[in-house]
Amino acid sequence: METIKQFELSKEYLESLRIAIEGEDGSFIQESFEGVNVADIASMLEELTMEEALFVFKTIDKQVASDILTELEDDTLDKVIKEMDYQELASYIQLMDSDDAADMLNLFDDKESQEIIGYFDDKAKSLQVIDLLKYEEDTAGGIMAKEYIRANKNWTVVQTINEIRRQAENVEKIFSIYVVNNRQHLLGRVSLKKIVLASDQTLIQDIYEEELISVTTDTDQEEVAEIMRRYDLESIPVVNAKNVLVGRITVDDILDVLREEAEEDMQAMTGITDTVDEYDSVIKLTKARLPWLLIGIIGGLMGAGFIGFFEGGLSKVTALAFFIPLITATGGNVGIQSSSLVVQSLASKSAFDDSLSKRFLKGLLVAILNGLILALFVFGMVVLFYGNGARFAMVVSIALFSVVLLASFMGTVTPIVLDRMGINPALASGPFITTANDLLGLAVYFLVAMSLLNL
Amino acid sequence: METIKQFELSKEYLESLRIAIEGEDGSFIQESFEGVNVADIASMLEELTMEEALFVFKTIDKQVASDILTELEDDTLDKVIKEMDYQELASYIQLMDSDDAADMLNLFDDKESQEIIGYFDDKAKSLQVIDLLKYEEDTAGGIMAKEYIRANKNWTVVQTINEIRRQAENVEKIFSIYVVNNRQHLLGRVSLKKIVLASDQTLIQDIYEEELISVTTDTDQEEVAEIMRRYDLESIPVVNAKNVLVGRITVDDILDVLREEAEEDMQAMTGITDTVDEYDSVIKLTKARLPWLLIGIIGGLMGAGFIGFFEGGLSKVTALAFFIPLITATGGNVGIQSSSLVVQSLASKSAFDDSLSKRFLKGLLVAILNGLILALFVFGMVVLFYGNGARFAMVVSIALFSVVLLASFMGTVTPIVLDRMGINPALASGPFITTANDLLGLAVYFLVAMSLLNL
Repeated sequence: METIKQFELSKEYLESLRIAIEGEDGSFIQESFEGVNVADIASMLEELTMEEALFVFKTIDKQVASDILTELEDDTLDKVIKEMDYQELASYIQLMDSDDAADMLNLFDDKESQEIIGYFDDKAKSLQVIDLLKYEEDTAGGIMAKEYIRANKNWTVVQTINEIRRQAENVEKIFSIYVVNNRQHLLGRVSLKKIVLASDQTLIQDIYEEELISVTTDTDQEEVAEIMRRYDLESIPVVNAKNVLVGRITVDDILDVLREEAEEDMQAMTGITDTVDEYDSVIKLTKARLPWLLIGIIGGLMGAGFIGFFEGGLSKVTALAFFIPLITATGGNVGIQSSSLVVQSLASKSAFDDSLSKRFLKGLLVAILNGLILALFVFGMVVLFYGNGARFAMVVSIALFSVVLLASFMGTVTPIVLDRMGINPALASGPFITTANDLLGLAVYFLVAMSLLNL
Repeated sequence: METIKQFELSKEYLESLRIAIEGEDGSFIQESFEGVNVADIASMLEELTMEEALFVFKTIDKQVASDILTELEDDTLDKVIKEMDYQELASYIQLMDSDDAADMLNLFDDKESQEIIGYFDDKAKSLQVIDLLKYEEDTAGGIMAKEYIRANKNWTVVQTINEIRRQAENVEKIFSIYVVNNRQHLLGRVSLKKIVLASDQTLIQDIYEEELISVTTDTDQEEVAEIMRRYDLESIPVVNAKNVLVGRITVDDILDVLREEAEEDMQAMTGITDTVDEYDSVIKLTKARLPWLLIGIIGGLMGAGFIGFFEGGLSKVTALAFFIPLITATGGNVGIQSSSLVVQSLASKSAFDDSLSKRFLKGLLVAILNGLILALFVFGMVVLFYGNGARFAMVVSIALFSVVLLASFMGTVTPIVLDRMGINPALASGPFITTANDLLGLAVYFLVAMSLLNL
């Protein structure tokens, strides 16, 4: 096959790279990286020691090294930048696209990043980056780049092509050309395809499209992602409050946002603090998992205290203990189902969303239906197999029914409340809420038992 | 502001639309849709009755109607296509991009879709669609489109521009132009930017880039998404086993794939069968949630039977019951943490992944550390507050330690096994596995108690 496919990272290649580094064979390293995507080179560097990686950095082309820095995993990046002085860092950072440069500088505090920017030779880039650093990291302003093509509506096609030529090195991917008036207000867009097909003297104002979706600098990055997905956009212009074009977000950054948000949700749901992965140290992994486990344990101890409170009744009717797991597990399952449905619908808000009261009513109906079916089933099973009599079976099934209702309510309300407080609603399926629901379930179960069995 | 922003869906507008439909005022409807994105029109139609929506369909431009069909939610789409005959459906479907047309035909069985294709006037489109229907829906072949620009390496720039002009109507977004040899083998790509900047008589073979990442028709769509994210691609060419270019996947489809996969994972983790959302009927929602709840209930009943087996011991030491929720909850939390870490790492496989044995060893160490800390904490708390003596506290903490180890092992192994069996590993955090883990936890707890307390 003639086409170069994805680079195959092999242990054999890694070995030969190591030998080349040891022998300081710079030309082998440069040749072997030719035509390899920087994302793949970055993966390879992750496997080397810090000294090896730094040798590679100094050997290869400055632009390639700069591209690699933007692709490194956070942990490796932290280590690499600690080994470089500010002047060296500046020489790499100024070669990055403005959005990547700003992300990199956000790893430093204000004073440090000012010092690094001070070393930039590229004054235009330093102004762009200083502007980008103003915005919150997870807003459109924080993820946009300053590299894009802007055409005045009075330009001709040939003038626009000259602008593309002038910017060819800075703007790697063009997608659309944004059309502005003399005051830089965003008016619309014209596709590169139209430019290719139009005659040289055609005026931009005669071929541009006015229908254009834009976001403002303070739009949340998750909302930007949803807009780009909904309208099938590969790039979106960012304007300030006065509709002046200030940046552009491309879809490759949005794919990273989506992955980041999905990981955040997964972590919120499964009770892992910090972003960790399998490659982290045992200590770091333990630390990330311990806090939520401890909360679960404290909840469990409170549950134990709570059941202890009913010890008298429990010692009379030991069978009450048998159904504790049934009650807590069902409460947990119902709660998670409810909250995941709400989280899903919060992620895709629409102008025609059902009102809160209508949602609750519907949730209540579903819970009643499910609760009734499960309670009847459990009633039958307990009477048949556990032989504690209908009265006891009644206790278990009434408690179960109440727990289904309660867990469904909590599972619906908690994510909505969290969302309104500006907290990630996925936390509603997390260990904290699950633990709280367990305790509630136990309370319902024993209260029902105590009153129905006169214990 | 001069720019048209996202269309504001208001209840007032919806009301005026309804009045226009009632008055059969076609021109109002057409005018009010001008410049509105089809995704927004689709959202609006979701709010109308079927008769109202069908009236709108017949009133507006055929191409717009066809675009709207591709944007409708599955439920609405199902209803709409039931109201149309095959000839009418064909008239819309043949106006769609080939990938959307194939998706639409996949809603019908083979015989029906053949009949619909039979009504196509556009013979080229029917051949394209028939080709696409060969591939599995969740592979690169199943999501690729036949609309893309292909240039022979021997062409000049002006020949290529003529090809772009010829295809301008079919290929809405160009991104890259794929370069092939005379046998249609994929050789590389040339960006539209390069075409704009090159002189007319430049040969494509002198300006195209050979480094190109492609996928084959049978590549899983999730892998396609990961490759496009990793390499920041806005489109990717699809080749067959002989490296012949057969299609192209654009990033807008990948955003949909990512959302689909995230929803699938969420559902697997939270035990909701079928894709449901808040707008579905109470009966449908109940049905989607009941199966997993029943499995949880059956697990709970088995747990009850299991605890009942130890009734003798339990009636002697009632306090054993107090800690049942502590044990099952911790097992659940540890299991979910472990499996979510594994699921995350399965999603981003690398050539340098640690070996299975190394992973297990690391997981074991983390579990031992967490388990020890939690067990010591619980031991102290039980001695201090529950006054059942050190021997009893020992039972609870040894059982807890064992459960942490076991749940961690199960949480690590289950997703790996599911993944190797070709099943979505996110199911490992789902109700089925959680229920199984609850039972295991109970077993460990009571076995430890029985042997240590000589019950």
